[in-house]
Amino acid sequence: MESKLGFLFDIGIILLAANIGGIISKKLKQPVVLGQILVGLILGMGILEKTETVSQLAEIGVVFLMFIAGLETDVNELKASGRSSSLIALGGVLIPFILVFAGMYIVTSNFLASLFMGVIATATSVSISVQTLREIDQMRSRQGIGILGAAIIDDVVGIILLTLIIGVVRPGENNNVFLVIGKIGIFFIMTFIIGYLLIRVMSKISTKINIDDKIVSFAIVFCFILAFLSEELGVAAITGAYFSGVVFSMTSCRHKLSHEVHRISSIIFTPIFFVAIGLGVDLRAAISALGIGIILVVLGSLGKIIGCGFGAKISGFGNKEALQIGFGMVPRAEVAIIIANLGLAINVINEKQLASVIMMVLITTLITPSLLKWSFGRA
Amino acid sequence: MESKLGFLFDIGIILLAANIGGIISKKLKQPVVLGQILVGLILGMGILEKTETVSQLAEIGVVFLMFIAGLETDVNELKASGRSSSLIALGGVLIPFILVFAGMYIVTSNFLASLFMGVIATATSVSISVQTLREIDQMRSRQGIGILGAAIIDDVVGIILLTLIIGVVRPGENNNVFLVIGKIGIFFIMTFIIGYLLIRVMSKISTKINIDDKIVSFAIVFCFILAFLSEELGVAAITGAYFSGVVFSMTSCRHKLSHEVHRISSIIFTPIFFVAIGLGVDLRAAISALGIGIILVVLGSLGKIIGCGFGAKISGFGNKEALQIGFGMVPRAEVAIIIANLGLAINVINEKQLASVIMMVLITTLITPSLLKWSFGRA
Repeated sequence: MESKLGFLFDIGIILLAANIGGIISKKLKQPVVLGQILVGLILGMGILEKTETVSQLAEIGVVFLMFIAGLETDVNELKASGRSSSLIALGGVLIPFILVFAGMYIVTSNFLASLFMGVIATATSVSISVQTLREIDQMRSRQGIGILGAAIIDDVVGIILLTLIIGVVRPGENNNVFLVIGKIGIFFIMTFIIGYLLIRVMSKISTKINIDDKIVSFAIVFCFILAFLSEELGVAAITGAYFSGVVFSMTSCRHKLSHEVHRISSIIFTPIFFVAIGLGVDLRAAISALGIGIILVVLGSLGKIIGCGFGAKISGFGNKEALQIGFGMVPRAEVAIIIANLGLAINVINEKQLASVIMMVLITTLITPSLLKWSFGRA
Repeated sequence: MESKLGFLFDIGIILLAANIGGIISKKLKQPVVLGQILVGLILGMGILEKTETVSQLAEIGVVFLMFIAGLETDVNELKASGRSSSLIALGGVLIPFILVFAGMYIVTSNFLASLFMGVIATATSVSISVQTLREIDQMRSRQGIGILGAAIIDDVVGIILLTLIIGVVRPGENNNVFLVIGKIGIFFIMTFIIGYLLIRVMSKISTKINIDDKIVSFAIVFCFILAFLSEELGVAAITGAYFSGVVFSMTSCRHKLSHEVHRISSIIFTPIFFVAIGLGVDLRAAISALGIGIILVVLGSLGKIIGCGFGAKISGFGNKEALQIGFGMVPRAEVAIIIANLGLAINVINEKQLASVIMMVLITTLITPSLLKWSFGRA
């Protein structure tokens, strides 16, 4: 019986560490996520093991994160920022992808791993962009809206890219790219048909019985089952979670859902996810990944600044504004780590490369606020 | 990878079933808990297995339930209803304990199991009493307050009784009752010293940094670690969870905590707990437990009606009011099942006896609203 409840102790320690890490991060004006990963790194140095229970709770955490990201994908906001956001996003996906892929391929000679690292380099973090822009009170500026819109498109494109590459590299599956795209097509069509029907049924039922207090539960059920099914169909679970969020983002309860799911997730599951990432990192590998990490940080950051800046420039922004937008698109966070984690799980990248991604997240998150402050300060 | 995410599917199905069961229960004006256990019974008929992940999430659910029960233990409310509540609770603990212990011992000749079943029979469910009284608009009546106060004392006494019996019957431990009581004493003293220090530290820190948004996390950490430590000290984990709730019930954030933890728990963990109870029941055993179940239901219900009624009578209530109070104390729910589940886990009672407890919960929960309505209708 004693060891049977050891998981309660593990979770308690992880949540405590996550909170302490978060508080220290906040004191140092850093994103909470950073502190959580760092305490995970410390706990991983022989204090705690990454048990199956911790891994599964962490998996629920990432599913919730992507579900919330889906819920917060505003199709109308996208339309409003429109052409410029699309060009910024396009540049911000293409250039980092090409630069990092090329750089990694030159260093590692591993085609698939380099492709995967390229995909990882495309994923800008919306949350950190928003947080940074809010801090310097530039969220409603033209550059701010451009960054936000581009970050949303970036997310969607990143997930499609990820889905493509997962389908291609998944071992034991048919590697025919057209078959994979077809399967993904079927997945998306299926998701939207199910989603459409679900929303129709929901709006009909809600006139008869009060579904309001049940909606959070049903949305979570939908999200978990779609995440599972997408995995079974050869698409990543987080893709299913993201699109189940998108489905519910088209209902009137999106704000309620995003608020409630965030609440549940942020107290238990999300902290466990970020600490577990740290727990899972071999620090010796991270230090040995210094070389590859620096390449990734430099190429990934330059790629975003050049790509997004160029996209902004040709859609009508001035040089200064284009640079600000480029800086705003530099930070990577959870999504990059999620993809890297997945890549490790399916043996496409190794621990060293995962460690280099964590280094990229740490460094880009640390430098972005300063870069943005400096560039806006000059204005 | 496919089977790795099977737990997401399991959880999705369990939450879906729990919600459907809950909705049907509500439509039929029954407690939600009933429907959740029933769908668990159905899922257990070959559809789903009770995996380790499900068991652990269920364990978190019960820890949260007991933590909330602790948070809602109002020391002041107890003082107000005072003497009469104590007498009602005393009668309602002693008579069912004696009747059920005697009845079970005659039938099974198993001393420890009969003792344990006696303890199970003492646990009135506060939630169902409150729900029933609210429905017939008698919550603020003298009988209502008497029932509420007694139910709270009943809970505390039940947990102490449970702690005692767990300490006594735990295999491999020293069975010296005084040692056990001493250990429990040390546990309580330790809990209150830690709790007292924690509250002092909290109130000091809160003047310097804003701890408000972190309090839920820290309370959960405290609860999980105390639940684990109490289990390690030979006291049940739920006792640790309950008393960590009691500690925080003495702080100004008790309402916030009870609200937030209930929210988190009620969407994911608590439904899994109740469905998992159904999942874990062998229906054939339940049917074969019909005889023992009827004895438990009859003796357990009569015990509460007689014991609480007598307690009410000698503390100044009239015959009619004493009967109403007795009826109000009949329902058993989560606590009885929690204790029975624990008894099964430590091999003190068997599946048949667990099934008979579930039968008691089902039947007493079903009959109480009618009994109360009838008795108040006559007034």
